[in-house]
Amino acid sequence: MSRARLPDAVVERGVEGKKIVLFVLDGLGGLPRPETGLTELETAHTPHLDALARLSSLGALIPVSPGITPGSGPGHLSLFGYDPVEYVIGRGALSALGVGFDLRAGDLAARLNLATLDGEGRILDRRAGRPSDEEGRRIVEKIRGGLEPPEGVEVFLEHEKEHRVALILRGKGLGADLEDTDPQATGVPPLPVRALDQESERSAALLEDVLGQMRAIMEDEPAANGVLARGFAAYEGYPGFLERYGLRALAVAQYPMYRGVARLVGMDVLDIPADPPGLVNVLERHFQDYDFFFLHFKYPDSRGEDGDFQEKVKAIESVDPLIPRIVELGPEVLVVTGDHSTPATFRAHSWHSVPVLLASPWARPSGVRFGESECRTGDLGTFEGKHLMALALAHAGRLAKFGA
Amino acid sequence: MSRARLPDAVVERGVEGKKIVLFVLDGLGGLPRPETGLTELETAHTPHLDALARLSSLGALIPVSPGITPGSGPGHLSLFGYDPVEYVIGRGALSALGVGFDLRAGDLAARLNLATLDGEGRILDRRAGRPSDEEGRRIVEKIRGGLEPPEGVEVFLEHEKEHRVALILRGKGLGADLEDTDPQATGVPPLPVRALDQESERSAALLEDVLGQMRAIMEDEPAANGVLARGFAAYEGYPGFLERYGLRALAVAQYPMYRGVARLVGMDVLDIPADPPGLVNVLERHFQDYDFFFLHFKYPDSRGEDGDFQEKVKAIESVDPLIPRIVELGPEVLVVTGDHSTPATFRAHSWHSVPVLLASPWARPSGVRFGESECRTGDLGTFEGKHLMALALAHAGRLAKFGA
Repeated sequence: MSRARLPDAVVERGVEGKKIVLFVLDGLGGLPRPETGLTELETAHTPHLDALARLSSLGALIPVSPGITPGSGPGHLSLFGYDPVEYVIGRGALSALGVGFDLRAGDLAARLNLATLDGEGRILDRRAGRPSDEEGRRIVEKIRGGLEPPEGVEVFLEHEKEHRVALILRGKGLGADLEDTDPQATGVPPLPVRALDQESERSAALLEDVLGQMRAIMEDEPAANGVLARGFAAYEGYPGFLERYGLRALAVAQYPMYRGVARLVGMDVLDIPADPPGLVNVLERHFQDYDFFFLHFKYPDSRGEDGDFQEKVKAIESVDPLIPRIVELGPEVLVVTGDHSTPATFRAHSWHSVPVLLASPWARPSGVRFGESECRTGDLGTFEGKHLMALALAHAGRLAKFGA
Repeated sequence: MSRARLPDAVVERGVEGKKIVLFVLDGLGGLPRPETGLTELETAHTPHLDALARLSSLGALIPVSPGITPGSGPGHLSLFGYDPVEYVIGRGALSALGVGFDLRAGDLAARLNLATLDGEGRILDRRAGRPSDEEGRRIVEKIRGGLEPPEGVEVFLEHEKEHRVALILRGKGLGADLEDTDPQATGVPPLPVRALDQESERSAALLEDVLGQMRAIMEDEPAANGVLARGFAAYEGYPGFLERYGLRALAVAQYPMYRGVARLVGMDVLDIPADPPGLVNVLERHFQDYDFFFLHFKYPDSRGEDGDFQEKVKAIESVDPLIPRIVELGPEVLVVTGDHSTPATFRAHSWHSVPVLLASPWARPSGVRFGESECRTGDLGTFEGKHLMALALAHAGRLAKFGA
């Protein structure tokens, strides 16, 4: 773990210019289609990425560690240089991030499910018949209207999707070593909020108050008349990009999850149109204002999860024409990679390594095109994602010598 | 180190089918013969392994860490996913394992050397003139016949080879922070058993009793009239394959050492004929009864230690015809690799990486044959052995996503 922290010690502060662009094509890595032996990226017609690859250091990035399939949170933390095993994000915090909630250090977060209870308070349906988003939002609004925050805390309730809601308590000294109230079974009542250490006892009492008020407010609802809580997590606050790397960072991402993770590490966050040109328009507009730019493009992952090889190819191809516009801006370093692989044949996130291209005047080129086959023999080797930031900073002339 | 433990958190339990076969060709990795530039494996005619390699992910496995030459114990622990730096097996415990002793959690083990003392009790020969195995066994039998275990412990004595003997004390609360009695010099008497912490003081007293009895029993021996003890180690008990990975595991290995390490990690262990077809006969017979199979084939290592390049080639070739029979059984994952390199030109275990072949429907193939040259540019990259199990589990669909 200490290795991921090395950059802290050698980071050069106050460097002017020498900008870094990290372009994440979500789920970029793939598996070959048997007919051709070529992956999605290798099938795609990407003349600009290939030309850039000839001037770049290439490598194969392992998001977490060999064999481990990351969710989006850990995958991005790793790209940002935060060891995702060390910086674990609880489900509650992820839920809050996923709806773009501005989570702050010390916040206690949980994932709630709206549920249906019978007359005796026993669980009939752990998902309240999967309400529509509209219905879910209506119930959350109703609870908000009636809820009185206990003394000393603020309470936030954010609807996510269907029966899923994020609950956040903000206050001082809120321990989060708490057992789920969701018994993961029907026919039994929800469990009480139980503290597993002394620091969490006040949190347990506050949550019993809040959950009790919720149940009273929801009492007359036909379906969603109860809640189940799980994944209690305190968000500790991460050292941000400015503190760790001396980088003023901007995130350009459309989906709440990615905006949320970027905000966790101290990036400014902009909401942008989903189409790739929109990403670069924003980059052009703000290029002078920041040192680091995280551009997120979701569709290769989505099409991979659909199992649609050809559409994933097209999603990758849609990005290619933007490359000259980014290069034109003159960043010192341009990294193109993914947060994990989502092979269309596999229809899900996977553990396979992800191709990386790192363009810089100090690259050591080895290949003629951007694809898994060339990247696996690239100069950067096969390396864990948490090291990517150190490589980017080094190529941007933003790391000093380690030791004399 | 926590990284090697990550799989614990994401292991899927109760998965049916999706079997994993780990075929260890001991000492597989080699060095090229100058005349051809080809290693033993690359020289061998292995059409079935090569055909399998074309459908497999390839890689280069570093048994412990770069430059470290492992013994058989650490080499295998690493393959089984137990960081051998974290899970240290003391020399005493290894000795016990090496003779197939059924080591249990809490046992205190030591390696003994039979030695020759002079009339004043000073060491004349630290190896008692290297007695024959027969002579060594006779002396161990004699000691066993006269020894009275101190109150509250069982005492086991197992002859290993020549002057080497394993001593095991079984009882409650036996601390093992003890200094060697072997002064590593002649002309001085053996040292007393000295405890380095309070928990080990009772062990020291018990050992003084046992070693004193031994010296008395051996008094009239012309050569082996003393013992030197070193490598005191308590065996703590390891979490087993079922607990860590949800795998019912079977080991098919002929030599006591490998059976011993397999038993340490909770595998069922079968004794089998030494010839390769015997391994696969057993696999076929028990394929329905287990989830994971460890097959061990010793001869590439033995011939490498002999310095016999051509015989190591033949040992590897003898395995090749078995591959179709293993594939025919339909495991989800078949891994072929070694626990370390034993280059015939080097005549010993070495630190060089070991070729790995991982066959699975989710492999990302990159090469056309199984050998060091192709494996070093394989999709798995160069990785530490402790990650192999996570890779095998992932390819077998036995790991859940890490984080949301």
